[in-house]
Amino acid sequence: MAVGAASPATVADSAAAAPGEAVRLRLDLAYDGRDFHGWAPQPGLRTVAGVLSSALATTLRSGCSPALVVAGRTDAGVHALGQVCHVDVAPDAFAAAGAATGLTRRLRGLLPPDVRLTALVVAPRGFDARFAARRRRYAYRVCDDPAGPDPLRRHEVLTHPRPLTVARMTEASARLRGFHDFAAFCKRRDGATTIRTLEEFFWARDADGTVRAGVVADAFCHSMVRALVGCLLPVGDGRRDVGWPAQVLAARLRDPAVTVAPAHGLTLIGIDYPPDEQLAERVREARAMRAAV
Amino acid sequence: MAVGAASPATVADSAAAAPGEAVRLRLDLAYDGRDFHGWAPQPGLRTVAGVLSSALATTLRSGCSPALVVAGRTDAGVHALGQVCHVDVAPDAFAAAGAATGLTRRLRGLLPPDVRLTALVVAPRGFDARFAARRRRYAYRVCDDPAGPDPLRRHEVLTHPRPLTVARMTEASARLRGFHDFAAFCKRRDGATTIRTLEEFFWARDADGTVRAGVVADAFCHSMVRALVGCLLPVGDGRRDVGWPAQVLAARLRDPAVTVAPAHGLTLIGIDYPPDEQLAERVREARAMRAAV
Repeated sequence: MAVGAASPATVADSAAAAPGEAVRLRLDLAYDGRDFHGWAPQPGLRTVAGVLSSALATTLRSGCSPALVVAGRTDAGVHALGQVCHVDVAPDAFAAAGAATGLTRRLRGLLPPDVRLTALVVAPRGFDARFAARRRRYAYRVCDDPAGPDPLRRHEVLTHPRPLTVARMTEASARLRGFHDFAAFCKRRDGATTIRTLEEFFWARDADGTVRAGVVADAFCHSMVRALVGCLLPVGDGRRDVGWPAQVLAARLRDPAVTVAPAHGLTLIGIDYPPDEQLAERVREARAMRAAV
Repeated sequence: MAVGAASPATVADSAAAAPGEAVRLRLDLAYDGRDFHGWAPQPGLRTVAGVLSSALATTLRSGCSPALVVAGRTDAGVHALGQVCHVDVAPDAFAAAGAATGLTRRLRGLLPPDVRLTALVVAPRGFDARFAARRRRYAYRVCDDPAGPDPLRRHEVLTHPRPLTVARMTEASARLRGFHDFAAFCKRRDGATTIRTLEEFFWARDADGTVRAGVVADAFCHSMVRALVGCLLPVGDGRRDVGWPAQVLAARLRDPAVTVAPAHGLTLIGIDYPPDEQLAERVREARAMRAAV
């Protein structure tokens, strides 16, 4: 992923930057994914990065929209509560916009109501929203009540037409946890590894009756969370055996019987980063891991 | 409020109805108020009662839409989690629609996704959604974070531009509780009493930072909850003294300085009814109270 016009050296050293060096900013965001064609900029389509980048260009009085590096590239319709991205900006433009406080206020005034800028700070030395991330946390919500979901939650909860047994889903999900090749649950991309550590994959029934999956990994391949959820739903409603998801995983081949669950039930809950002094090491480690196939 | 074509005697006795007598149904509903012009039917406008009534007419193969009697008549934009209404239907049409189970399934298939039929049952003898209600419970949500509300909650949370001190609002609200003439917080309506018992009026800050009012009364006048909230917000942000709401109440006159808070922050949480054997008595009591001025 490109980091604007900044050279690799500038990227690593942007925090306590010398005059003229780019200032790296960390932005924490929440958004309602409903009216976005996902995170990544696409010509002619409304995307979160597109909206945010053009608001940044306006506040920084920059002729071109700055490139954003994101922790969790969400698909069209996926929501976020704790998305994180970084951007490198010119120090004079940053100062002219009123530094972090002024820029935060101006951006909040410009952003549409379906994007919330939760925080904007100068990133600590070595920070990289994508490669310094230690883990990504997602939630997927499903309603199996024949009455349907609470109407105020219907854009963030999948309606499932059959009753779900949470215990079966929890048992099946536990067998997928750990360090595996998740090729069976990933959209194939040449040269990219599909080996990941699935740290958590649990199911719970919330107080309002909604069934919720918690899915945590060091990183996810494209559509991996939704494929995992899509594989577990037929276990929950009894159409598949509890052992089926582990069989799918072991085959290491995309199984056409696994339906990728719809986007609107998925929310990126948050990104975990290591303490500041371990950021640079984590970036080196993550870059090396992604390069390995 | 009219109860269809049923005579008063039929209304009271509809539960264990003799052949030919109307069957009274209790419907529990949730809705997203955003795209509705409130509860009450209005010609040419999309209302919750209008949508529900026409779905009932379809399922019951009735030429005219049945009249609904509701517990909490919500304004345009107000949401509901636990709304209750009743309707009297012809026993043959009810049987033909598959009784409560069949009618529930058919209605759910017809209702739009912004209305949820949580439950439909034959009402117990003496039940009246409006007059048997012992109390109505509302919540009003406000976000005072400069970042704005979670984008997924923005249609149910008011954005307030100044920080709120919950303790001040709680103290001021406590002085409004009890049996009073709430004329200062009510839209005047000739011949209707504005005397109510405000059982609860508290404020709390939820885990996500949202400030929430809980407002419970035996009944509310039109726009009363939103006027109470509108009176408390300037206390919370320091523009008014803690004693001001009690002064407004004591004046018993609509005070132009009180701004009615916007509809979208308000949700009807639920309606409390007495045990079945006390329903008829509660209806007599409530009718007598409303008649008194």
